[in-house]
Amino acid sequence: MIKRAMLCGLLLVASLGAYAQAKDTHNEIALQMYTLRNVGDADAQFAMAGKAGFKNVELVGTHGVDAPALQQILKKNQLNVVAAHVQLSALEQDFAITVAFNKAVGNTHIVVPWIEAADRPTTQQGWVDYAKRLDAMGAKLRHEGITLAFHNHDFEMKKYGTDSVLDIIMKNTQRDNLVLELDVAWVSRGGQDPAQFITRYAGRIYAIHAKDNSGIGVRDDEMNFAPMGEGILEWNSILNAARKSGVQWFIVEHDSPKDPWTIITTSRKNLDALLKQHPQH
Amino acid sequence: MIKRAMLCGLLLVASLGAYAQAKDTHNEIALQMYTLRNVGDADAQFAMAGKAGFKNVELVGTHGVDAPALQQILKKNQLNVVAAHVQLSALEQDFAITVAFNKAVGNTHIVVPWIEAADRPTTQQGWVDYAKRLDAMGAKLRHEGITLAFHNHDFEMKKYGTDSVLDIIMKNTQRDNLVLELDVAWVSRGGQDPAQFITRYAGRIYAIHAKDNSGIGVRDDEMNFAPMGEGILEWNSILNAARKSGVQWFIVEHDSPKDPWTIITTSRKNLDALLKQHPQH
Repeated sequence: MIKRAMLCGLLLVASLGAYAQAKDTHNEIALQMYTLRNVGDADAQFAMAGKAGFKNVELVGTHGVDAPALQQILKKNQLNVVAAHVQLSALEQDFAITVAFNKAVGNTHIVVPWIEAADRPTTQQGWVDYAKRLDAMGAKLRHEGITLAFHNHDFEMKKYGTDSVLDIIMKNTQRDNLVLELDVAWVSRGGQDPAQFITRYAGRIYAIHAKDNSGIGVRDDEMNFAPMGEGILEWNSILNAARKSGVQWFIVEHDSPKDPWTIITTSRKNLDALLKQHPQH
Repeated sequence: MIKRAMLCGLLLVASLGAYAQAKDTHNEIALQMYTLRNVGDADAQFAMAGKAGFKNVELVGTHGVDAPALQQILKKNQLNVVAAHVQLSALEQDFAITVAFNKAVGNTHIVVPWIEAADRPTTQQGWVDYAKRLDAMGAKLRHEGITLAFHNHDFEMKKYGTDSVLDIIMKNTQRDNLVLELDVAWVSRGGQDPAQFITRYAGRIYAIHAKDNSGIGVRDDEMNFAPMGEGILEWNSILNAARKSGVQWFIVEHDSPKDPWTIITTSRKNLDALLKQHPQH
C-alpha cells in the first residue's frame, strides 16, 4: 500500500511537472506600453511593466528616448520587445530612422496602430488604395527583416457589401507583407465576432490584444474596457480559434486605465489563467 | 406622338402617386424623447419634436408631469405616443399608477429600457430568473391591454455558451408577454450582427432604435453615436431583415447629442430616405 501510494505520488509529480512546462505562458504574454503612458517617464513605465511580471513588451514609437537609452531601460527590467506601434505616415516619412531604431532595440514587428479620423478613406476604393500602401510598406520592411502588422479599432468593421474594411485590407495585401494584430475588444465593438475573424485569417494573426469590454454602465470612466475575462467577450471561442490559428502573442492593453498597476496585474493574472485553460496543442 | 406622350405622362404621374403613398414613412418613424432630455422643460422638448417633423414619440416615464398635462402637450404638438420607457422596478412597485398614466396618454407599449449595473444578474440562471420577472410583468400588463417590450444595450450580448443574455430573455418569455425594442447600435457594440438578430426573432420585434455608431475618433464627445446611415452599421441588411420581420416602428434616438436639434432633424431625414430605399412589401 505504501509503495503504491509513493509510486502514485511520483507519477503525479512527474505529470504535474510536464503539465507546468507545457503551460508556461511567459513566452506568449506581453504588455502594450500605451497602457502605461501616464505613469511617469519611460524609466518608470518600463520598471512598472517588469515589476508586474511581464517579460515582453510592445513599444509605442520611441518612448521619447534614443535607441541606446531604451536598450538600457529594457535590459535593466529584463524586457524583450515583441512589436512596436508606429504610424504609417511616420514609417513612410522616416523609414531609415524608424528601421534603425527598431533593429537597435531588437524588434522585428512594426504595427500600424491607428488611422486619424481625417485620414480614413470613405469609399471601398479608398480602402483598397490604403491597403496597397500597407502592402508596399510591408514589402519594403520585409527586405529589412521586419514584419508589418495592422492593428484595428471598430471603424475597420464597417462593411462595403459583404466585406469589412479589415477584410478589404487583408484581401489587398500579400500574406508576406502584412499580418494582423487583432484587437478583439474593438472587433466586437464593431459588431463582429472575433473568433470568426481569427478563424478566417488563420496563419495571418501575429498577435491578439487581449482585453475585454465591460458593457455600458460598468467602468464608464475607463472607456468601458475591462481586464480580459471580466467583461462581455466570449473567451472560450476566441482562445480556441487563436490556438488553431497559430496566434503567437497575447498582448495586454487598456486604452484608458484609471489605476494602471491594478489593471495590468489583474489582466496578466486573468490572461495567464485563461491561456492555461486553453493550452497549445 | 403628342397623345402617346400625354398618356405616358399621365401614367407616370399616376405611378408616382401610388409610389409616394406606399412610401409615406410618417406612420413608422418616431422619436425617443430621451434624446431631448436636456432641452428645457417637457413643453420645450415636445415642441422641438413636433417642429422637427415627428408625428410620433416614445416617452421616458412621465416627463415629470401628470397625465392631463402631458396629454395637453402632446395634443398641442400633434404627437402620438407609440411607447414609453419605464424601469421594471417602477412597474413592479407602482403598477396601477403606471398603467393608469400610460392609458391616459394613449400608450399601449411599455419598454424596460435599462438595468442598473448593480442589478444585472451575473449567471445564466440569474438571467433566466430575470426573464421570468419580465414574463410575469408582460402577462400582467397584457390583461390591461398593454404590451411589454425590452430594450437592449451591449451588456445583453454577453454569451453563456452559445446563447446571449438577450437570447436567454427571449427563450424564457412567452411571445405574448414580451416583444423587443432592438437598439441595433448597441447590438453591434456588443459584437453581434443586428440583421441576424432581427431575423432570428422575426415577429417579436416591435421597434428598432435607429441609430448608428461613428467608430472611435469620430464624435468622441457624443458617445460615438451618429445619425443613422452616417456611421459603420450596414443598413441594407438591417432594413431588409426588419422589413421581412414585421418591425413596426423605427425610432430615432441619440444617447448623448451635443446639438439635439441637428441630430434629430438629420436622423429623421436619413431614416426617411433609408426607409424609402427599403419599402414595405
